[in-house]
Amino acid sequence: MSFRQIKRLIDAAQGCEPADVVIRNCTVVDVFAEDYLNRDLLIVEDKIAALVDPGEGQGKQVIDADGAFAVPGLIESHMHVESTLVSLTEVARLIVPRGVTTIIIDPHEIANVLGIEGIRLLLDSVQDLPLKVLIQIPSRVPTAPGIETTGGEIDLEDIREMLSWSEVVALGELDPSKVLPPRPEYIARVEMAQAEGVITCGHAADLSGRELMAYASTGLADDHECVSVEEIIERVRAGMRVNIREGTSERDLETLVRAVTVHGVPARRLMHCTDDKQVIDLMEEGHIDHNVRWGIECGLTPMQSIQMATINPSEHFHLESRIGSLTPGRHADLFLCRDLQALEADTVIVDGKVVAENGGLMQQPSAPTYPDWALSTMHLGKQLKREDFTIHAPDNQNEVTAKVIKVIPDLAIDEMIFEKMDVVQGEVTADRDRDLFKIAVVDRHKASGRVGLGLIQGFGFKQGAIGSTVCHDNHNLILVGSDGDEMAHCANLIATMGGGFALVQAGKVLAKLPLPLAGIMSQAAFEQVAEELAQMRRAARDMGITLDTPFMKLSILALPTVPEVGLTDMGLVDVRKHAIVPLFCVS
Amino acid sequence: MSFRQIKRLIDAAQGCEPADVVIRNCTVVDVFAEDYLNRDLLIVEDKIAALVDPGEGQGKQVIDADGAFAVPGLIESHMHVESTLVSLTEVARLIVPRGVTTIIIDPHEIANVLGIEGIRLLLDSVQDLPLKVLIQIPSRVPTAPGIETTGGEIDLEDIREMLSWSEVVALGELDPSKVLPPRPEYIARVEMAQAEGVITCGHAADLSGRELMAYASTGLADDHECVSVEEIIERVRAGMRVNIREGTSERDLETLVRAVTVHGVPARRLMHCTDDKQVIDLMEEGHIDHNVRWGIECGLTPMQSIQMATINPSEHFHLESRIGSLTPGRHADLFLCRDLQALEADTVIVDGKVVAENGGLMQQPSAPTYPDWALSTMHLGKQLKREDFTIHAPDNQNEVTAKVIKVIPDLAIDEMIFEKMDVVQGEVTADRDRDLFKIAVVDRHKASGRVGLGLIQGFGFKQGAIGSTVCHDNHNLILVGSDGDEMAHCANLIATMGGGFALVQAGKVLAKLPLPLAGIMSQAAFEQVAEELAQMRRAARDMGITLDTPFMKLSILALPTVPEVGLTDMGLVDVRKHAIVPLFCVS
Repeated sequence: MSFRQIKRLIDAAQGCEPADVVIRNCTVVDVFAEDYLNRDLLIVEDKIAALVDPGEGQGKQVIDADGAFAVPGLIESHMHVESTLVSLTEVARLIVPRGVTTIIIDPHEIANVLGIEGIRLLLDSVQDLPLKVLIQIPSRVPTAPGIETTGGEIDLEDIREMLSWSEVVALGELDPSKVLPPRPEYIARVEMAQAEGVITCGHAADLSGRELMAYASTGLADDHECVSVEEIIERVRAGMRVNIREGTSERDLETLVRAVTVHGVPARRLMHCTDDKQVIDLMEEGHIDHNVRWGIECGLTPMQSIQMATINPSEHFHLESRIGSLTPGRHADLFLCRDLQALEADTVIVDGKVVAENGGLMQQPSAPTYPDWALSTMHLGKQLKREDFTIHAPDNQNEVTAKVIKVIPDLAIDEMIFEKMDVVQGEVTADRDRDLFKIAVVDRHKASGRVGLGLIQGFGFKQGAIGSTVCHDNHNLILVGSDGDEMAHCANLIATMGGGFALVQAGKVLAKLPLPLAGIMSQAAFEQVAEELAQMRRAARDMGITLDTPFMKLSILALPTVPEVGLTDMGLVDVRKHAIVPLFCVS
Repeated sequence: MSFRQIKRLIDAAQGCEPADVVIRNCTVVDVFAEDYLNRDLLIVEDKIAALVDPGEGQGKQVIDADGAFAVPGLIESHMHVESTLVSLTEVARLIVPRGVTTIIIDPHEIANVLGIEGIRLLLDSVQDLPLKVLIQIPSRVPTAPGIETTGGEIDLEDIREMLSWSEVVALGELDPSKVLPPRPEYIARVEMAQAEGVITCGHAADLSGRELMAYASTGLADDHECVSVEEIIERVRAGMRVNIREGTSERDLETLVRAVTVHGVPARRLMHCTDDKQVIDLMEEGHIDHNVRWGIECGLTPMQSIQMATINPSEHFHLESRIGSLTPGRHADLFLCRDLQALEADTVIVDGKVVAENGGLMQQPSAPTYPDWALSTMHLGKQLKREDFTIHAPDNQNEVTAKVIKVIPDLAIDEMIFEKMDVVQGEVTADRDRDLFKIAVVDRHKASGRVGLGLIQGFGFKQGAIGSTVCHDNHNLILVGSDGDEMAHCANLIATMGGGFALVQAGKVLAKLPLPLAGIMSQAAFEQVAEELAQMRRAARDMGITLDTPFMKLSILALPTVPEVGLTDMGLVDVRKHAIVPLFCVS
């Protein structure tokens, strides 16, 4: 703060000069004292100057809260914002009117496409938005070096540079494979971040017992992968904080609040997060406001649930002096609402200015212009042809036993199964009757022309192809199709869109959703993206796809780190072996 | 941590290799989950590797806790360690066996004598001690520039340098006079510290209402000056944390815990501290262990009171990943005790090593050798004579009205009263019948020969002099005496001691306590210092001094910032005017 502003804060607090804004007649949710106080709130520039007795506050602008609650702006404690599918501008339009004023994001996805420049681009795009965007530095880009191709890489020097950025509050989710056993290149990142005093975040999926202890001993300080009460208790006992996740797919809150309501775990150690949440769900349900609300419905007190989205994350990330409470010297980020259970924001104030009312921003932000390098990230190196998707059988075989990816609906994991397949003219082709289709991952970053091929069961359609460039974590181009022509058509279409989702059948485009920003996000208005996404889902159903959310499913098939099997541009990955394996069993 | 150590922690946690130490059969006080867990504690080098099920832990050294509680090492959240009167070596001998393993100190006193070099000297003296010493950078040395002389000064550049020290966790107590109204030179210090991410500590004595709001708006984040429940509630509501103080003179705990036990203030926002506590009281009563114990007696739960000396300060000072809990990756600082109410440490472990048992350190630390510049800080510039203490009356007056400092026993404040005094041969002298004596403050830092003179009522003796170099915050040489001969004798004696306390009468030394380290601390064993201090108190009583703790009283008479009146080497200070004023009223 400038000396001038400090002097103005002090003068306004002491009543020597009027504040810029006074909010009268409100009940302040005091997250520190755990109390509800009838006060006038004085704001000078972007900060809170004072809470004074009702009627005592003088300000140039008077906001009459008419008895509403004043709630500190909500904080998202861990989110991959790219998963919304929309730009940060649109995210702000979506969530700020709901009272979310700070998001702590791990921009892991864009980093896989565009590296550190992609992260900087995101941050630069929010300069004029009424939303604070703070960063967990992606700690593992690529996730699986050597068995996948990414557009960007984040190395130790990048991390050193980012640690000097004012937006950085943490090193992002380091998963157990990097530290159990410890790998020097990742431990060096943890050590560097800790030396700078920032939090090092965890991702302790499936860990328990002594493995969890070992993981915690490296200083990884939180976890958003808990799915059971036992896990949450174990993590709190291990000295970790837990981000309870309630996003599009993972919905852990109802189960996990029982740690507090039944088992007496102090809510102090818990935070709300969404991790991944798509635009449609944000529109229909809400963002962290939903988590707070749902937490209350599940048995938390309103104070506990609000603390989990205010002072708990601000304390964890060493932001307590800046955000998370309505107390002197903090940013004036807050919303007014009539009912803490319903938690619907009437008026939202960010940095002392009214930025949203009745569910919408007061001023529509101008759409940022992104540079060409961020909008042209489809580097296939060639026009794709049917031959690029030909699966060649080993020489002189009439029948082969193939390793097939079997999709498990509703779960983020897949099985590897073994299927006998006929060989015709040296090729293995789809077998519709057994729901066996081709799957391909095409390098879209380095123009190598590399295509990883495999077979998949579980999509359910008869003809056509589905393709996407949203595919964790490498975000290459993934396709599932009935034959090479359909797949080539779909691939080339997506290339011309600059990335995105597409469905084709018999030479026709059934639906498409361009995501030209790094090939993973749209620049369009969220309403339009949501509508197009709904159309995509309908078209997929019409095409015969039996999965509820086929693009979400596609997005994890290229993950070489989630059990049991994945596909990258380099080939089929046996996750447990962390290695590329042949597609066919040796006969 | 080194990669080697992290690997060892992980291996021990997972059971692949034995830990260095296993503590078996203990009940871990889990300050995060607020629970008591029967676990084996595994330690590798200086860190905790894991908590495992009873009987599961393997270690090269086995400690059988025999059912005792394992409590995280206690943290002192705010202390002027110089007030103990002993060296840090002796402080460690005193408090580590009681389970205190970290002290966060504001070395304000030594900084007034020796500047930044004095602070570095303290820190260097603890390198081999089993005690973590962390620093709040003194923010106002001198406290009252222009109206007092100090030996050291701390400027913005010193603060910048100290902010790079690994021991620094905060900027120390900035008092309201520096920020209400805001003074640019002090605000710059706050801003610099906050930019480095360290906590900026407060000292909000007597503030309330809108003044407190104004004070908090500058980012000063805690206060240890609360004396009432109303004050504590107000501070928590203002977003500040409160260090509840229980030291030698200020005893606020019994009153203040009612904020929690009666008014429902979350203990989460509170910490224990002593601020100032003398060696005798540390010996008789204890240190932070006493505060925890007394807090429980006053109605806190053992968990709350222990949290106030463990995770609450570690969270506040961003030390949570290092100390304050018995969880993986944290320093293995703990003590075993049989009874949480009594909280008597049997065995104390610091950095994984048993350092104390049954009330004493296992290994007596070697006495550090201090450099001559730290032991020779009496710079009077001359041998003092009776004439140096002569109070000259204005010309041609037979009677004057003098401003007299009236001591208020048991309180840290004094009154200014007005007394008519006879003038004999141009001099004003002591008047035993009215208990009016001379008081002098001699510059001992710059050898200026400057002596500030005044009159005082309330010491109660008839003849002799009492002198001390422990005098906040400038630590000059202060004397109260019946005449110039006694005062000169006392002053010269203290000069030869290198500083300290002395009582003289009729040419005889009644008692003395040398404090040669910066003139404010002894190098001797704490037992000896305590014994000499007890002797001093007896001798003072025998001499006729009616004050219980005359040296504590002397120590605040030279404070130009505590109401209503003080005396510095520059003369009488009217505290409210913050200015030197004439000793006599104009007739």
